Amino acid sequence: MGLRDRHERWHERHGQAGPSGGSPVVRGRPRSEAVERAIIEGVMSLLEEGVSLGDMSIERIARTAGVGKATIYRRWKGKEELFVEVMRATDEPDPELPGDSVRDDLVAVLEGIRRRGLAKRSSALLQSLLAQAKNYPQLWELYHEEVVARRRARVTEVLRRGVEAGELRGHLDLSLMGDLFTGPMLARTILSHDAPLPDGLSESIVDTVLAGLRP
Amino acid sequence: MGLRDRHERWHERHGQAGPSGGSPVVRGRPRSEAVERAIIEGVMSLLEEGVSLGDMSIERIARTAGVGKATIYRRWKGKEELFVEVMRATDEPDPELPGDSVRDDLVAVLEGIRRRGLAKRSSALLQSLLAQAKNYPQLWELYHEEVVARRRARVTEVLRRGVEAGELRGHLDLSLMGDLFTGPMLARTILSHDAPLPDGLSESIVDTVLAGLRP
Repeated sequence: MGLRDRHERWHERHGQAGPSGGSPVVRGRPRSEAVERAIIEGVMSLLEEGVSLGDMSIERIARTAGVGKATIYRRWKGKEELFVEVMRATDEPDPELPGDSVRDDLVAVLEGIRRRGLAKRSSALLQSLLAQAKNYPQLWELYHEEVVARRRARVTEVLRRGVEAGELRGHLDLSLMGDLFTGPMLARTILSHDAPLPDGLSESIVDTVLAGLRP
Repeated sequence: MGLRDRHERWHERHGQAGPSGGSPVVRGRPRSEAVERAIIEGVMSLLEEGVSLGDMSIERIARTAGVGKATIYRRWKGKEELFVEVMRATDEPDPELPGDSVRDDLVAVLEGIRRRGLAKRSSALLQSLLAQAKNYPQLWELYHEEVVARRRARVTEVLRRGVEAGELRGHLDLSLMGDLFTGPMLARTILSHDAPLPDGLSESIVDTVLAGLRP
């Protein structure tokens, strides 16, 4: 899936019409959100043209998006804050949690990480965006914190439910317990370029951590 | 432990006298290794003075180490290769594996990762070195590949032994099985700045992955 498609889906999730039309869902300040969308798409167009984040001035983004510089500054303090928004727009959506069992919910969370890893490997533009983003420590921190914090909160909630329902032993703190499930998948998607990410990997990890590795 | 201490220990492990004296162990080309040590220490001195890797010319390193530029170029193709050597010199040594049980060996490997994480958090100089190193993709790749490849090889060997001895189920490939143990610790040391790394963490992770999280 291209960045643009993902971006459209992001807008669908947020209750707005995609750029290709459809009746706009009125919520909050739709007019303002259309402007934000244009600005984010401006950054994406420039990225697709090969312009680096470093060479992207607010002025150039404004010109590409067909808005004034003040319109951008009214929404974001500067480039870094805007780029965080762009990175969010390229993300895979958080997976739906089926909610039937802790096991299935954990598989769904790991599938989200795996899909994000596969998307990163297959999209040169996404790779370039992530590589460039690392040169902006503040941006990277903001983005990373949000992604990680959101995932941790979801996993903690699933595990708390599992301990309460007696599906999990409760001897570890929930944060460490979460790392036992997500850590192996993150090691393969974030810390490795080439560890295989086959179908069924999420199930393997979750089921093995639940059952243990002793014979 | 300071970078310098760690560097001295590195030389002890490699069978050479530390800078503080002692009779040199003659092995290979000791004269040459003393020169290499002086060069690596030159880079460290400059780092301690606050010179960034980007501002560190081969000329300046040579001057600090008291050698000629040609002496450096004879050993390393350029700055990046030399910096990889500097990063190796700052590393915690790989832990000894007790070899009595798979469980204890895995705890030892995880302790190595935990200690590296604690060292990184406590040393501003090490943090600065790692942060700067990330701006040299080739350096980072070389260093990372070596550290990761070496650890993976050790873990795989331990697990293979464990499966053969019947201490572990053998239903997963060894690489994935290794990630189940190391991934949670790496998630806390590399992907997080502030996840607690208390004593006993390695034991908790290994024992829980072995026993499983089902009640």
